Amino acid sequence: MSGRQALLLSSSNCHGYSMLEFAKEEICAFLNKNNVKELLFVPFAQNNFDDYTNKIKGVISHWGFSVTGLHTYSEPKKAVSSAKAIFIGGGNTFLLLDRLYTHNLVDLIKNRVLEGKLAYIGSSAGTNVATKSIHTTNDMPIIYPPSFEAIGLVPFNINPHYTDKNENETHKGETRDQRIGEYISMPHANAVLGLREGSILHVDGNSLILKGVAGAVLFQKGGKKTEYSVGQNISFLLEE
Amino acid sequence: MSGRQALLLSSSNCHGYSMLEFAKEEICAFLNKNNVKELLFVPFAQNNFDDYTNKIKGVISHWGFSVTGLHTYSEPKKAVSSAKAIFIGGGNTFLLLDRLYTHNLVDLIKNRVLEGKLAYIGSSAGTNVATKSIHTTNDMPIIYPPSFEAIGLVPFNINPHYTDKNENETHKGETRDQRIGEYISMPHANAVLGLREGSILHVDGNSLILKGVAGAVLFQKGGKKTEYSVGQNISFLLEE
Ligand SMILES: [Ca+2]
Ligand SMILES: [Ca+2]
Repeated sequence: MSGRQALLLSSSNCHGYSMLEFAKEEICAFLNKNNVKELLFVPFAQNNFDDYTNKIKGVISHWGFSVTGLHTYSEPKKAVSSAKAIFIGGGNTFLLLDRLYTHNLVDLIKNRVLEGKLAYIGSSAGTNVATKSIHTTNDMPIIYPPSFEAIGLVPFNINPHYTDKNENETHKGETRDQRIGEYISMPHANAVLGLREGSILHVDGNSLILKGVAGAVLFQKGGKKTEYSVGQNISFLLEE
Repeated sequence: MSGRQALLLSSSNCHGYSMLEFAKEEICAFLNKNNVKELLFVPFAQNNFDDYTNKIKGVISHWGFSVTGLHTYSEPKKAVSSAKAIFIGGGNTFLLLDRLYTHNLVDLIKNRVLEGKLAYIGSSAGTNVATKSIHTTNDMPIIYPPSFEAIGLVPFNINPHYTDKNENETHKGETRDQRIGEYISMPHANAVLGLREGSILHVDGNSLILKGVAGAVLFQKGGKKTEYSVGQNISFLLEE
């Protein structure tokens, strides 16, 4: 591997595809490029670890890769330290980050990925925790984690499942854009990339390319909003 | 006043009504019953304190009550200590709770309300912070507060702007019920009352009556879900 290797999916599910199907080509190419045959799956964003791991295994093992759940190891740090590739799945971002802190995995994963020793795949909550912080998750704050700071493989924030459709016209809750706007107006805010369902970020060292079957929207300080489409090079977002 | 006095609104806006109009009768009756003429407004859930206070004042002053913003006092604790009624408005729940902690107002408000010395009106985020914790807010976690524990005027949680409509059929993000279900499955979870827009909780000592123009849905451990309609006595929820 040369530099950090990460594939960040907006979600595992995308309308019109079976689970992870929209990302099959990218995931296979990513794992093959990094000479990976075994994937360590982290089911911590959900509560039924076995079921969740088996669901992912049921898809990915057919693509020629073996999958084991991190919860099956008595020493999670050791398992992460010897893995070549990790896949962190979606569910609840607060629950996921809290468990990563409990097991002292946040810095370990960060260091191994940044040293180019661990390839990272994330989906939804697993994508949120790969960024600077979880300030832009859509999830309900069901548990209080020791920090909102996350693994920080990229120096910006992500809003997965991004949509600019209104929930419905009579409902008075905030739209997604208003929610992201509330964050962007904070002094500590980073830029936010809204990943539409079906969107994939491919991080290869200092290169960042938008892949998958749907685009992304960048929100910046001052209210600037820019649309990017599949295939575009957005490596400038990796500059700190 | 006899015991805690609180009026908890799902939101300030309700489809088909101008701002706070759906709650006018209840707010006026509540303030009159508690011999209140002056309302201390807390605009901390938003960033433009003057604008927000003026918007609320523009409505409520026409009903015969004076309104001052908490941000106009050099000593917020002193202002809260001498107020007879407080109105905490909506916006972002994390920002609101963080500012209440910064100004050391959480325990002060709790104690004065529970002693029957301060009447409390909350709307949306202002309703969230009146409950046990903010674990069931819909807001984006734009700032990390020192705790998710809140004022605790009632021993359960509230989900304001509750809706059981799906955002849209092709979107794969969680529904509101799924989000609340994620919280309910946590060991530390309290019961959650989902307040539909237009719903109002009237707390009068140990009595709790559902008022306003829309009902509420109670979520309990084990997945039990119960619908309540306007006028129903749900005082059992106040038992700890
Ligand atoms: Ca989620
Ligand atoms: Ca809000």
